[in-house]
Amino acid sequence: MSGDDCVFCKILDGKIPSMKLWEDERTLCIMDINPLNAGHCLVITRAHAETIYEAEPEDLAAAMATAQRVAGAIRAGLHPGGLNVLQANGAAAFQSVPHFHLHLIPRFANDGKGFDWKQVPGDRAEIMAAGEKIRTALGAAGEARARSES
Amino acid sequence: MSGDDCVFCKILDGKIPSMKLWEDERTLCIMDINPLNAGHCLVITRAHAETIYEAEPEDLAAAMATAQRVAGAIRAGLHPGGLNVLQANGAAAFQSVPHFHLHLIPRFANDGKGFDWKQVPGDRAEIMAAGEKIRTALGAAGEARARSES
Repeated sequence: MSGDDCVFCKILDGKIPSMKLWEDERTLCIMDINPLNAGHCLVITRAHAETIYEAEPEDLAAAMATAQRVAGAIRAGLHPGGLNVLQANGAAAFQSVPHFHLHLIPRFANDGKGFDWKQVPGDRAEIMAAGEKIRTALGAAGEARARSES
Repeated sequence: MSGDDCVFCKILDGKIPSMKLWEDERTLCIMDINPLNAGHCLVITRAHAETIYEAEPEDLAAAMATAQRVAGAIRAGLHPGGLNVLQANGAAAFQSVPHFHLHLIPRFANDGKGFDWKQVPGDRAEIMAAGEKIRTALGAAGEARARSES
């Protein structure tokens, strides 16, 4: 099911042009026209699902397989110092197109484009409180499995 | 094969404690002790592979499946405004632990933690030149498949 106003669905349907790098049954990889760095590209699922929450597991697995394949080609072809894979869900995470996609972002030493991320230890009680809420939401099965090993 | 000095291998072996949220045959999800935001956790592959380039495809697929499962629990338990999935390869991409992992980062409106990312159109010729290098590295098969549709 595609959204009539979805840019990625239009690209998948050929109604909007794109520079395609790879495509297979479940995914398409195209160059990002608003690149963060040289070589920035996008792995898009053919099926229209807005976020990771709604996507079919098979499509997520296929997107990762395409990401691995193209990541290797980015490394071989562009020789970046590193590569980030980024996926956004929701406006607060800066998702711009509501159709599941992975950003493949080549990184270069000191390119100044990183997350605003200071590696500082968090408050242990707060971390565990958040973790308990996630565990609870994972349900009894997940909770039991995790606890049995922790 | 685990690296003797790998922090995540030690966590997987139970030699370093962690707060576990989920585990299965191929993956483990734990709370990040240096969280970017409340609820920040990590999906780690059991197998030691440094980056997306070396990981087994089955482990990448399993990591995504765990990410989807835990992402849903983060949403249900913490109600963030959004969620970023981030994966880093290499020092220039700010990879801190050389063992494949996905960051699940809850995002809250105006939390000021985003990528330093201006959505500005790139130079078309430069984008296409980078794309050609990636296509070439993808090899004749990928190139032909992509071209046949573009």
